[in-house]
Amino acid sequence: MIAEKMKGMVANSSAIRAMFEEGNRLAGIYGAENVYDFSLGNPNIPAPKSVKEAMISILNEEDPITVHGYTNSNAGYADVRKAVAENLNKRFQTNFTGNNIIMTVGAAGGLNVILKTLLNPGDEVIVFAPYFGEYRSYVSNFDGVLVEISPDTETFQPKMEEFEQKITAKTKAVIVNNPNNPTGVVYSEETIKRLAAVMEQKQKEFGTDIYLISDEPYRELVYGNVEVPFLTKYYDNTVIGYSFSKSLSLPGERIGYLVIPDEAKDSADILSAANVANRILGFVNAPTLQQKAVARCLDEKADIAFYDRNREALYNGLLEAGFSCIKPQGAFYLFVKAPTEDEKEFCGRAKNYNILMVPGSSFGCPGFVRLAYCVSHETILRSLPKFKELAKEYGL
Amino acid sequence: MIAEKMKGMVANSSAIRAMFEEGNRLAGIYGAENVYDFSLGNPNIPAPKSVKEAMISILNEEDPITVHGYTNSNAGYADVRKAVAENLNKRFQTNFTGNNIIMTVGAAGGLNVILKTLLNPGDEVIVFAPYFGEYRSYVSNFDGVLVEISPDTETFQPKMEEFEQKITAKTKAVIVNNPNNPTGVVYSEETIKRLAAVMEQKQKEFGTDIYLISDEPYRELVYGNVEVPFLTKYYDNTVIGYSFSKSLSLPGERIGYLVIPDEAKDSADILSAANVANRILGFVNAPTLQQKAVARCLDEKADIAFYDRNREALYNGLLEAGFSCIKPQGAFYLFVKAPTEDEKEFCGRAKNYNILMVPGSSFGCPGFVRLAYCVSHETILRSLPKFKELAKEYGL
Repeated sequence: MIAEKMKGMVANSSAIRAMFEEGNRLAGIYGAENVYDFSLGNPNIPAPKSVKEAMISILNEEDPITVHGYTNSNAGYADVRKAVAENLNKRFQTNFTGNNIIMTVGAAGGLNVILKTLLNPGDEVIVFAPYFGEYRSYVSNFDGVLVEISPDTETFQPKMEEFEQKITAKTKAVIVNNPNNPTGVVYSEETIKRLAAVMEQKQKEFGTDIYLISDEPYRELVYGNVEVPFLTKYYDNTVIGYSFSKSLSLPGERIGYLVIPDEAKDSADILSAANVANRILGFVNAPTLQQKAVARCLDEKADIAFYDRNREALYNGLLEAGFSCIKPQGAFYLFVKAPTEDEKEFCGRAKNYNILMVPGSSFGCPGFVRLAYCVSHETILRSLPKFKELAKEYGL
Repeated sequence: MIAEKMKGMVANSSAIRAMFEEGNRLAGIYGAENVYDFSLGNPNIPAPKSVKEAMISILNEEDPITVHGYTNSNAGYADVRKAVAENLNKRFQTNFTGNNIIMTVGAAGGLNVILKTLLNPGDEVIVFAPYFGEYRSYVSNFDGVLVEISPDTETFQPKMEEFEQKITAKTKAVIVNNPNNPTGVVYSEETIKRLAAVMEQKQKEFGTDIYLISDEPYRELVYGNVEVPFLTKYYDNTVIGYSFSKSLSLPGERIGYLVIPDEAKDSADILSAANVANRILGFVNAPTLQQKAVARCLDEKADIAFYDRNREALYNGLLEAGFSCIKPQGAFYLFVKAPTEDEKEFCGRAKNYNILMVPGSSFGCPGFVRLAYCVSHETILRSLPKFKELAKEYGL
């Protein structure tokens, strides 16, 4: 009895579910400490202490009718939106006001809101492989057509020529994810400038508006001195989707925001429509206690040093074992080249060593696997000898 | 540049926005205490103290990585789902397990999840006027066709004959809202039995499955000894959408659940698909701290006596002024007959007395207006002389 559109999605989801259950099964047999589950992007460092303190102080000190009530606007509390705008202005020399901000149910909620706002059935949305597989579903929710740009498996920066060729009069949006899930690569300023130039030129050529949707849940998770360009400064028709899931380790609380700058074409209409979309998609407003909590913690972030230590240990260990992968500059993923063409076979064989990874096909990039290193450091250290054994099977 | 489908919705939403701004404008001129804003269903009694205590204790005592993390299943924490199921079993002599429960982003989130799960484009969804206007948008989100049953303006119970006539082979679902927004009427056990019998008979006639979706955010808000029938006991293909928004005064926190009983046809498939829908619509999971908090407060509810006092005062006051309306048995709305055919004219004239109400057209029932009495008791008392003056204008 379920909707036709859901059937394929359920089958696909069962595969993820099966992997999760496999992890539980293995943990039951070998003990949880001997299972190396790199499949999930669920942060394993706690939210900063200030987040808990903010929540408790709000609960103790503010009026519960306001704290837990519907917000006057579906976009969220005016003071929270203002605080977010001012924090962005301070950090990125932008000129937003609270009116440019819509608080959302995480970045996933925000992306659905902006796609509902923009897409007519048949509109094309371009993504650069490898890309977060959920974009397929989000675009499909509104009967958009996903157009993939094939991966540059050397640099994992977008392939500009193919991008130029695949933009059509029907292209309504381009989604980028920076830093990138699943590669951990950060699109450089040079990449962004070229991307913007291509889009400007195509807008002129087709007489259309093409929105650049930047999905940024990993913005704060960068290592060393890497800079993540702030895209509204490079291209007017930019919409940013942000989440506090990773920066404050609050993924389950579903709190993030959209930035819709005044420079975007028809900005006022888009803001009104996004407000309505937030309501009618059933979000209504972002969870209110969490809105107030994050507004007090805009300069906080989770302990990046923890992820960095994992990154170094896993990256070096994998290289030592003979695998090859690009060194991530951000996020908490490693995208490893499978030592055989069929990366699903590789994932299957890794399971014999209690290693769980996600096939690159899920990200539009077969031949690779994703490892999420948001696990305990001990898990990484204990997994390394297993990776060595696995590598030997492939003669690495 | 916004999507065609959004354009009408934005226009409609602007009307609500305009009303809200009118309230602010009037408050600016006359003082907030002299504006009688009955337009919003935003509870004005605080969450029970135990809810705050539960949140603080969870924050202080539980592991933040778990409290704020993604839940293993998109349906929510297993222990929370089990607690909800057991609480329902205790109260309604049902036999649910945690597997029958999906925690959702309020009832609005839950309704979108179940409609995404069930509807193919063109599928018909029946609603009984007057009905919560958002159903239009929710059904439209998945390209369903809303079919209205005209109101019985004497009893506001569903018109059974028209219902029977309007069920077709394309009818996929029927939505009821009990207690009802905007009338406050509770559909009686007799109504429910007749409704179920009609649906059983039509399922046989067409060889189809027709799901009864029961939207129950007001379940706990009933006055006196009124019983709200628990619909899974009357009809197998029932799905319940619940919200803690009103029962625990937590509307902004976006926490509720779906009940999908084993008796429903293809129950296992529907549960899997609803899980996936929860994820891909961008909810991902219901906010996690709130899941844990409500699980500790399943036997609590907001102070109904407060609403009851408002109900009596406003109902009696309106009758005394010469208006007529059905006495609500639940929720916090009064649905008043407009003294003129064009209820929008009536709403407009009420504004001259600083009284804000919502036209019945928004609920598919012109000629009536909705008053939300979830306001302070003083607002009600102060509004009564104004209603008397307003009534006089119409010669009541």
